[in-house]
Amino acid sequence: MTWTLNASDLDDLARGAALLGTGGGGDPHVGRLLALTAIEQYGPITIIDPDELDDDAFVIPTAQMGAPTVVAEKLPAGTEGVVALRALEQRLGRTADATMPIECGGVNSMIPLHIAAVAGLPVVDADGMGRAFPELQMETFSVYGINGSPLALAGENGESAIIDTGADNKRMEDFARALTVTLGGVAHIAEYSMTGADVKRTAVPRTLTLALTVGRAIRTAREDHVDPLERLAEALAPTLYSHLRVLFRGKVTDVERRTVGGFTRGAAQLKAPNGSGMHIAFQNENLTAYRDGKLVCIVPDLICILEAETAEPITTEALRYGQRVNVIGISTPDMMRTPRALDTFGPRAFGLNEDYRPVEAHDAAEEALAR
Amino acid sequence: MTWTLNASDLDDLARGAALLGTGGGGDPHVGRLLALTAIEQYGPITIIDPDELDDDAFVIPTAQMGAPTVVAEKLPAGTEGVVALRALEQRLGRTADATMPIECGGVNSMIPLHIAAVAGLPVVDADGMGRAFPELQMETFSVYGINGSPLALAGENGESAIIDTGADNKRMEDFARALTVTLGGVAHIAEYSMTGADVKRTAVPRTLTLALTVGRAIRTAREDHVDPLERLAEALAPTLYSHLRVLFRGKVTDVERRTVGGFTRGAAQLKAPNGSGMHIAFQNENLTAYRDGKLVCIVPDLICILEAETAEPITTEALRYGQRVNVIGISTPDMMRTPRALDTFGPRAFGLNEDYRPVEAHDAAEEALAR
Repeated sequence: MTWTLNASDLDDLARGAALLGTGGGGDPHVGRLLALTAIEQYGPITIIDPDELDDDAFVIPTAQMGAPTVVAEKLPAGTEGVVALRALEQRLGRTADATMPIECGGVNSMIPLHIAAVAGLPVVDADGMGRAFPELQMETFSVYGINGSPLALAGENGESAIIDTGADNKRMEDFARALTVTLGGVAHIAEYSMTGADVKRTAVPRTLTLALTVGRAIRTAREDHVDPLERLAEALAPTLYSHLRVLFRGKVTDVERRTVGGFTRGAAQLKAPNGSGMHIAFQNENLTAYRDGKLVCIVPDLICILEAETAEPITTEALRYGQRVNVIGISTPDMMRTPRALDTFGPRAFGLNEDYRPVEAHDAAEEALAR
Repeated sequence: MTWTLNASDLDDLARGAALLGTGGGGDPHVGRLLALTAIEQYGPITIIDPDELDDDAFVIPTAQMGAPTVVAEKLPAGTEGVVALRALEQRLGRTADATMPIECGGVNSMIPLHIAAVAGLPVVDADGMGRAFPELQMETFSVYGINGSPLALAGENGESAIIDTGADNKRMEDFARALTVTLGGVAHIAEYSMTGADVKRTAVPRTLTLALTVGRAIRTAREDHVDPLERLAEALAPTLYSHLRVLFRGKVTDVERRTVGGFTRGAAQLKAPNGSGMHIAFQNENLTAYRDGKLVCIVPDLICILEAETAEPITTEALRYGQRVNVIGISTPDMMRTPRALDTFGPRAFGLNEDYRPVEAHDAAEEALAR
């Protein structure tokens, strides 16, 4: 179904995107401000269901790239994304019929909305990560055979670059990351241009709708004074993200975080009142959750840290000593769990030795529900 | 005068280019092999005098970029330069009538010859540095108002990028350097595309001829058993590089060299039999020469270290403890000594506190001639 996104949807969308960002993806509230300004100036945004895309429609996904710690402090000029889109259109000799998020978590659920409003384009309700990931080759687009190249990249002073690494999407990431670091840690990009038929085959569908659903579930649970996690589990059950597990309830006792090579890397330690502990490692996004030394959730499943009272998602750069939190795991869609998908963004792709195991298969995960 | 460069010219050209590289520019002998192979396959290369260029001819300079220490060890595949040229032509929607060196010292006197032979283009007898410099904004092209952008960059696996930073040639350098480091330290580039009229206005003229002249003077002096430095001074006198000063004669007693951020940085210490000392600092190229604590030559004038017996130029990466050497200073053309030129590649541009002073104005420089 094609629908219209209004300014009043942005709060829920940002909250849902922050949760789907699994700690990373950049703070969506910066992107929310950009999208809000654009909607106020240019009007509501048309969101196209992927099933309703023409097979020969031409779609250019757009995004911001950089370390979340930098993204949160270095606000975009607002023009970079459109510069990147136009540069890629010029290179390809073809104008886009629509744009699309490359990830549905964090700031990049919002950036394409801003670009779409300014450029007068609709946005496809789908993305290439089904969450947030730190690197550009970590896309379902890449997993299922789309070239990210040519990629257009733009900086805040109108600088631009076109990168073409053929079918080597990892090398494309290396090039774009090097330029992003040169730009001070943030750039805007347009990449993985594809047809409507390619979108249907390679994108994770209806993830803008998913983010809205998640954000609304948390808000309405607060308004209705019911447990947000229960409401969230009900909302997710009929989607491609059908399993929610509460992994831990406790306090943040330590956070180690550094910005290295354009990424935010580190780990958080949590402690429960009963003495139980949790260790969460991240590279922009949360990668692993160990409870008392036992792995209970691992990438690409979602590990989300939420404020205990309100279920407000907490990004890695906002994690602080003493916060009371709940940690949940959410299952990812089957297309993100195939061997090819796991080669691209499973544990090995992050240098982890653990094997992937679906969050819903980790036994005794439910026990943590008992406070 | 338009002339033809044959394979038999390459040894002299390489020797002259090594001297004009002032210690940097990358070892021209690697480029010589590429040019030789291309001439053997495609025939001799036409060298156009800049005065004979049509004002509306379209010239695309080409080069290799990277740290000399890496360039000497990582041989090009041989196709990168043409990939960069073609990528820039595609971006500009216009094919080149000729290529041109961006610097006349080191490997980059040779790289355009290789590209020209493969692409069937003539080479303009001029360049944008009048020597070698480590960074892409350090061009007379830039000093006199030409944009380096768009720049095309290519790697050995066919990767390419187009960088557009408008009039900001330093930012262009930053972008290209970041990608070069990502490629392992070497890339090939096409940049500063311009008309024939721009070449006449902004390029240092006849520097391929100059390199050949320098290389021949040293070779024929050896054959005639005369002092190569005297022969060299005679050969340079009628050119734009009219002053040659012998700055030091002695042995290398220490070399400190490291590869940092895509550059080779360091310093050499020399000692004369009479106890006199010389300190030479370099960033790819030699920047300053101090004799007994007194500055005797400084960038952009040329500081060249030559083997004592043969006057063979020694690049910074070939400097070794115990080598017997002569150090000479050579004056650069007036167009490289204007205030705008010195802002771009004078002492301050290298973070040096010293003021520029022409090598021929340093008093008592001649005294070192006495052994």
